[in-house]
Amino acid sequence: MNIEIIAVGTELLSTRFKDTNSLYLTERLDELGLPVTRRTIVGDQGPGLEASLRQALDFADLTLVGGGLGPTGDDLTREAAASALGRALVFRPEILASIEGRFRLRGRPMPEPNRRQAWIVEGAEILANAEGTAPGQWIEAGNRSLVLLPGPPNEMKSVFESGVLPRLSGWARPGLVRTVIRSTGLTESELESRIEDLYPESEDRVLTVLASPGRVDLHLAAVSPVLLEDLAGHLRERLGAAVYGGDGDDLEAVVVGLLRDAGSTLATAESCTGGLLAHRLTNVPGSSRVFLGGYVTYGNEAKVRDLGVDPALIESRGAVSEEAARAMASGARARMGSDWGLALTGIAGPGGGTSDKPVGLVYIALAGPEGVTAERWVFSGRRDSVKMQSSQRALDMLRLRLRGTA
Amino acid sequence: MNIEIIAVGTELLSTRFKDTNSLYLTERLDELGLPVTRRTIVGDQGPGLEASLRQALDFADLTLVGGGLGPTGDDLTREAAASALGRALVFRPEILASIEGRFRLRGRPMPEPNRRQAWIVEGAEILANAEGTAPGQWIEAGNRSLVLLPGPPNEMKSVFESGVLPRLSGWARPGLVRTVIRSTGLTESELESRIEDLYPESEDRVLTVLASPGRVDLHLAAVSPVLLEDLAGHLRERLGAAVYGGDGDDLEAVVVGLLRDAGSTLATAESCTGGLLAHRLTNVPGSSRVFLGGYVTYGNEAKVRDLGVDPALIESRGAVSEEAARAMASGARARMGSDWGLALTGIAGPGGGTSDKPVGLVYIALAGPEGVTAERWVFSGRRDSVKMQSSQRALDMLRLRLRGTA
Repeated sequence: MNIEIIAVGTELLSTRFKDTNSLYLTERLDELGLPVTRRTIVGDQGPGLEASLRQALDFADLTLVGGGLGPTGDDLTREAAASALGRALVFRPEILASIEGRFRLRGRPMPEPNRRQAWIVEGAEILANAEGTAPGQWIEAGNRSLVLLPGPPNEMKSVFESGVLPRLSGWARPGLVRTVIRSTGLTESELESRIEDLYPESEDRVLTVLASPGRVDLHLAAVSPVLLEDLAGHLRERLGAAVYGGDGDDLEAVVVGLLRDAGSTLATAESCTGGLLAHRLTNVPGSSRVFLGGYVTYGNEAKVRDLGVDPALIESRGAVSEEAARAMASGARARMGSDWGLALTGIAGPGGGTSDKPVGLVYIALAGPEGVTAERWVFSGRRDSVKMQSSQRALDMLRLRLRGTA
Repeated sequence: MNIEIIAVGTELLSTRFKDTNSLYLTERLDELGLPVTRRTIVGDQGPGLEASLRQALDFADLTLVGGGLGPTGDDLTREAAASALGRALVFRPEILASIEGRFRLRGRPMPEPNRRQAWIVEGAEILANAEGTAPGQWIEAGNRSLVLLPGPPNEMKSVFESGVLPRLSGWARPGLVRTVIRSTGLTESELESRIEDLYPESEDRVLTVLASPGRVDLHLAAVSPVLLEDLAGHLRERLGAAVYGGDGDDLEAVVVGLLRDAGSTLATAESCTGGLLAHRLTNVPGSSRVFLGGYVTYGNEAKVRDLGVDPALIESRGAVSEEAARAMASGARARMGSDWGLALTGIAGPGGGTSDKPVGLVYIALAGPEGVTAERWVFSGRRDSVKMQSSQRALDMLRLRLRGTA
């Protein structure tokens, strides 16, 4: 079976944009044991789009097209698909009604260009789009299937998951079974030295290690669930508490889950991470039950006023010090009346470093029912990476404490 | 003129490998004013390669193929090209002699599989490869040109520069100049209805519209700086204050810059965005000079205690109300002693919505020297998208006020 993905967008033909949609689709199809045969990028305008659709219909059993369903004049996938198939575009009033409803909800009139999105290829099934105005389209043409998906990544994923995936699951083949183990607290090489003798020697299993700031993921694949679980079990044993979850698990969601299970509450106090820790926690649906709130005390006055940090301490030890971190954590906990207080202070860079206190230096403190613990870290990388690694370690301190392993 | 790049390699169809060869070729062709029309990735094996070559010959005036010229059995580009063209492969002894010479120089006998590399498509011109054993091939077929290049990046570049570039320079057109205009505050279709008559009608200019949550970018390209600036000027005029910057400009950096220019300071109070606004502001290096700090008042008690919001107001109007947003903004401003206070309260979802106050409802308030203004929005999308759009609009309220246009 030939499967083709076509990404539509002139910007994707430049060198500045990564075609993340096609990578996402590749990954999901791969999970179904449906490997992609060809991946194409073509511009919105000019003769390339229709020609590519025509050729894809000739070549591939299943073609997934991403992009070009927007309301604007450079969104021509609808027209090109109709033309490649030799079909008409038909106006569907129920789509227009749904688009108008979206705008009404936001208290705005529907702009005229959005009308275009109510036209679909004759005979297409409509794939509802919960995230935007452009519905997807599933078109059968003889023994070929052509699927049109909106281009914005959140809309594409949403339509793919709700409308395409269910239709594909019947085609899934016994492919490799896969799993992911997510870890934090070990660098890639620390992790590597713990597991290097476990790399599979035969082709019936594959192990790949993927590092990102503050996280190392292990991707496992095997020809059977038994072989997969055997390898996964050994890896988990070696990595111990560093393993915090599986595929798609975010550390913040794990922490919110542990807090909920324990019936405990949390408050944060952030200097160098500037709100990222609170942002990550509040990304988790339902976090309001355990996260009472946080302070972004960027200036020293805010640390004194809102967290009760002793100005003399800041004077003598500095705002970036273990003592300040401890006082911030205790202050946030006392102030919010939470069970836990988690605080960070450091130098995210690029400026502000000294030989004594270099860029990347971060103190993290956790205040809880049994007192305050603190850690000192020096992270490398740019400002955003230092912020990310800091928030990751802070979450992990709390995770390990809640698990009772630290 | 249609130009296609085909990258050959099953590994490039996975998500782990980046097709750097095609990006390199895109860049070099772009410099010559020869924009790529289509980019394709296809595996080494199976029917996809020959079909893609056949379709490329049908579609493109010039096709550059990278990879599949190696000595091993999975290197099949030679065979596939010959077959797609309906030509034979011919053995060229002088290529074999040159390959043997390379091995002799390294004091090694030539492995038998390398013989395969001495076969070329009938009628092809040989493109010498100074870096490896596989020569490139330039094939003319009617008014089509098909160029085969080796896959290893250093070999591909070497053959491209010595053998392909000189042949292309005759085709070169004055290179395109490019610019980007970034806007916020208008939806894609609102923007569209303002500019739809400005879409260039000739090929000397290209306009592409790209939307992401809370932002719409315009990508412009033209054959001359004068034509580019002419189009850019008209677009900027139509979009007015919605334009906040150019390529790579983030709204938070623009706002921090405006605050710095004005010598003003800012404090934030966030409920539904949960720290994202503060996080974005503190992503900007040097933001500590203007951002004093923020409150993430997730619970009502925090809103009362830290921001001085009247509990009776929360009782009567609710925590998600214009009145609460106004009180939060004023509270943050007074508390931090800043010139501006920016506050958000809303329902990020997925839970917590009612028919009165649906998911996505967000109130944003800005307190400043001349009083407090507030806006009501209903954003659509998932939790992270609602958070992003809310923080974007909050930043934009401040930007517009600092520019004196709102």
